[in-house]
Amino acid sequence: MTIKVAIAGARGRMGTTARKAIEEAMDAEVVAALDYKHKGKFINGSLITNGQEGIPIYTSLAELANEVKPDVLLDVTDPDAVFSNVKEAIKLGIHPVVGTSGLTEEELHAISELVEETGMGAIIAPNFSIGAVLMMKFAAQAARYLGDIEIIEMHHDRKLDAPSGTAVKTANMIKSVRPAHIQGHPEEQEHLTGARGGDVEGMKIHSVRLPGLLAHQQVLLGGEGELLTIRHDSFDRNSFMPGIIMAIRHVVGRSDLIYGLEEIID
Amino acid sequence: MTIKVAIAGARGRMGTTARKAIEEAMDAEVVAALDYKHKGKFINGSLITNGQEGIPIYTSLAELANEVKPDVLLDVTDPDAVFSNVKEAIKLGIHPVVGTSGLTEEELHAISELVEETGMGAIIAPNFSIGAVLMMKFAAQAARYLGDIEIIEMHHDRKLDAPSGTAVKTANMIKSVRPAHIQGHPEEQEHLTGARGGDVEGMKIHSVRLPGLLAHQQVLLGGEGELLTIRHDSFDRNSFMPGIIMAIRHVVGRSDLIYGLEEIID
Amino acid sequence: MTIKVAIAGARGRMGTTARKAIEEAMDAEVVAALDYKHKGKFINGSLITNGQEGIPIYTSLAELANEVKPDVLLDVTDPDAVFSNVKEAIKLGIHPVVGTSGLTEEELHAISELVEETGMGAIIAPNFSIGAVLMMKFAAQAARYLGDIEIIEMHHDRKLDAPSGTAVKTANMIKSVRPAHIQGHPEEQEHLTGARGGDVEGMKIHSVRLPGLLAHQQVLLGGEGELLTIRHDSFDRNSFMPGIIMAIRHVVGRSDLIYGLEEIID
Amino acid sequence: MTIKVAIAGARGRMGTTARKAIEEAMDAEVVAALDYKHKGKFINGSLITNGQEGIPIYTSLAELANEVKPDVLLDVTDPDAVFSNVKEAIKLGIHPVVGTSGLTEEELHAISELVEETGMGAIIAPNFSIGAVLMMKFAAQAARYLGDIEIIEMHHDRKLDAPSGTAVKTANMIKSVRPAHIQGHPEEQEHLTGARGGDVEGMKIHSVRLPGLLAHQQVLLGGEGELLTIRHDSFDRNSFMPGIIMAIRHVVGRSDLIYGLEEIID
Repeated sequence: MTIKVAIAGARGRMGTTARKAIEEAMDAEVVAALDYKHKGKFINGSLITNGQEGIPIYTSLAELANEVKPDVLLDVTDPDAVFSNVKEAIKLGIHPVVGTSGLTEEELHAISELVEETGMGAIIAPNFSIGAVLMMKFAAQAARYLGDIEIIEMHHDRKLDAPSGTAVKTANMIKSVRPAHIQGHPEEQEHLTGARGGDVEGMKIHSVRLPGLLAHQQVLLGGEGELLTIRHDSFDRNSFMPGIIMAIRHVVGRSDLIYGLEEIID
Repeated sequence: MTIKVAIAGARGRMGTTARKAIEEAMDAEVVAALDYKHKGKFINGSLITNGQEGIPIYTSLAELANEVKPDVLLDVTDPDAVFSNVKEAIKLGIHPVVGTSGLTEEELHAISELVEETGMGAIIAPNFSIGAVLMMKFAAQAARYLGDIEIIEMHHDRKLDAPSGTAVKTANMIKSVRPAHIQGHPEEQEHLTGARGGDVEGMKIHSVRLPGLLAHQQVLLGGEGELLTIRHDSFDRNSFMPGIIMAIRHVVGRSDLIYGLEEIID
Repeated sequence: MTIKVAIAGARGRMGTTARKAIEEAMDAEVVAALDYKHKGKFINGSLITNGQEGIPIYTSLAELANEVKPDVLLDVTDPDAVFSNVKEAIKLGIHPVVGTSGLTEEELHAISELVEETGMGAIIAPNFSIGAVLMMKFAAQAARYLGDIEIIEMHHDRKLDAPSGTAVKTANMIKSVRPAHIQGHPEEQEHLTGARGGDVEGMKIHSVRLPGLLAHQQVLLGGEGELLTIRHDSFDRNSFMPGIIMAIRHVVGRSDLIYGLEEIID
Repeated sequence: MTIKVAIAGARGRMGTTARKAIEEAMDAEVVAALDYKHKGKFINGSLITNGQEGIPIYTSLAELANEVKPDVLLDVTDPDAVFSNVKEAIKLGIHPVVGTSGLTEEELHAISELVEETGMGAIIAPNFSIGAVLMMKFAAQAARYLGDIEIIEMHHDRKLDAPSGTAVKTANMIKSVRPAHIQGHPEEQEHLTGARGGDVEGMKIHSVRLPGLLAHQQVLLGGEGELLTIRHDSFDRNSFMPGIIMAIRHVVGRSDLIYGLEEIID
């Protein structure tokens, strides 16, 4: 069986990379694009054409569902439209696969209920990089044995927010297994404000921003006489493709809501 | 209950560190030392005394067992005497905890049979560093998703052997989950012999030896657009103590042979 | 004064990046492109046009020199044409700036003589990354104090050659200040062929090749109780632009042959 | 000529290591110990004896100078007595070699004047590790080309102060060549206080404290598309010995005040 995939955000850089990756997979194909414009046109490589070559563009998910009957909706748009897209997809019998960390607790709860009612499994993953997800999983596993932890995340200097979403997610995953405790010398003195980093229940997070950097994170776990370091370097958006393909294959057999790629990686 | 521990090799550097660590544990105590000399004397800190202070030294394990009835024999001697010590301990009803990679397949098989007959659980661990064991476990877990792997191990320049035992162990653990395949460009050319490292089913191992270094290893796992690095730095022998204590606590409730600390870490 | 630059290889990826960087520099402009085809056309952004917008294309350097009188010829072509381009440029009174490691000793000697006769300074640099050049310089400086050295270079797995040109260049720069000597334990045993890396007068070079990697190198210098590591990560070809601009500005004031960016960085 | 060295602090751990290192040097020997107690006794290895074997202990520098006429006073005591020891040594015609960062501006000025009057050269070095000094020098050299810089220093969790003295020294050396400027995105938002580290004229310093760590620092210098990292790992106090020996050899030929080992390393 070939899995039929519709993509929201197919014209963007991530969508273009994803189209290519899905076409290269043996068992999946892109059957339609959901967009807010270009209704009735086609995406052919990097062009939008009037001809019949390429992937048909729809501006209505209902119409798209009716005509091409996709198994999966991959949403790689900005997070604004994600919530309504996901709900509509589930109601239309399409499995959503979404890469965003922008949904609120309430929205996630609503999606979860809808999945439960309908039995249409969905995957929502803040990070589709398998390497990054493994880093977070391993850090949380190791924290049970090596509980003194600092996170150093390093990004290009065009990044607005500090710390990164991945660093916060990592700290949260560790928190769930590590009892809160103060690290460092109890009488430690910080002579330069901020030098000791941001504090999360005693864990420290340091955010480095430099031109040249891409997206990197290391988790340092210290024990008596030893240090364990788990580091992930993300060099380009191709790194998300194996996780996206894995999620597409996985979601069609699921009837529940999966939050985070770590749930389907063991 | 306090676990009663006898130590073979108690006078050595590892034995001295282990004595201290066991005494600091709430639930264990050192009750005797097994040695090849100093029969009837006592170990008191770093001294051997004739007085009654400290830990009594025995040169016979049978006599030691009879008089102090230990639950566990921790063997931190050179590997020569390990095999016979382990067998005798099991027969005497003492759980052996041994840190060595020096036992042959035949010896391990004989111990395994003896454990099965008697139901006296034993732990044999080539490496008691929890951090190192986690590194190996994580590398093998990640290898299922990121199958192109190189290992760089780095040690002081007094080390005789390359690659290190830990690097070989890591490669073997990865081999059991990673299908053998050639890495790198198929037409790769090595213009300087050895530059591409040692080969284990396509994986590469590089051994660095420099003055100043202690014991370090990193496992690099590459995927499209990303790199996952798992690194362990071992700075001193204190790093073995948490693993030794864990093994002592664990072995008293076991009736089977455990090989490798990874079996009791999850 | 604005430096007038002609570019050989202007249509390629490096040439396109270089055009942009030169136009952004306050004191330089691109006045012409030297190509093997498209004579009489113009380069306008990523297009080749017949109109008069953009940079005029010449297929003859003599004609180009005659009509636009550039100060500098930046050659970012494949190395095949470099030698003749450089010689012709010098004879025509144009300063060559060339990024290649592909010239032979004989060719370099011939260029050197031509520079001496004419007084037209030229710069030939195997690597225009300032960071990489600093890494090599620092490694050679430090080698006088910390003489036990290993080089680990890491590249994507599409790279054909090992070790990299930068690693070999680094080793050569270190060789000129470090007395040859055997490193590691004198009785060291390599149980897996290649594990100890490639040997250059006792220094070791290790080449890592993994998908995901870009271009990275670290030089490890060990001393009693300490380690100095100098690492360079090259993430994209933009990293060459500051060095190219520096060379263009520098060469117009020179009357000698400069080989390697390290000669104009202190 | 053999350089005659007196040591203040000879009984301590650093003093013991230094005694051994000086005795192993071909051209220096330890002739006396300056102490606040044990007058008239001798240091023999790790023992204090009444016999005539070993190094004679004096409690007065004047008496010591009169009887054994040392060329150099190596002071490895706590910083309290350093200032008066240095002044007295200079007046007595002994070259001081001191490893401390604890002298005030006023004290350094007073020493400088005394050196100028007498022509007795002195060396005061906050850090005798050659690797650490090279790291700082290289960072300052590179900062002229790659001006966006963050420092990550990492130490064991028994360290009281953050940032480390070496990190502050590094930042100060860089400041002298790098124009102050804000780094990162101008509208950067720190959602977790301290995550972006401590600020020194736009440079960021991050202090990591974990059990297991020893003393480590990396300086990250970012440029367009590239990153240069200079890292120093200090594993034990042996790393100070080559710098101490270098200073002892150097000071006997000097008539000025040298502050920092970087002044005699090029």
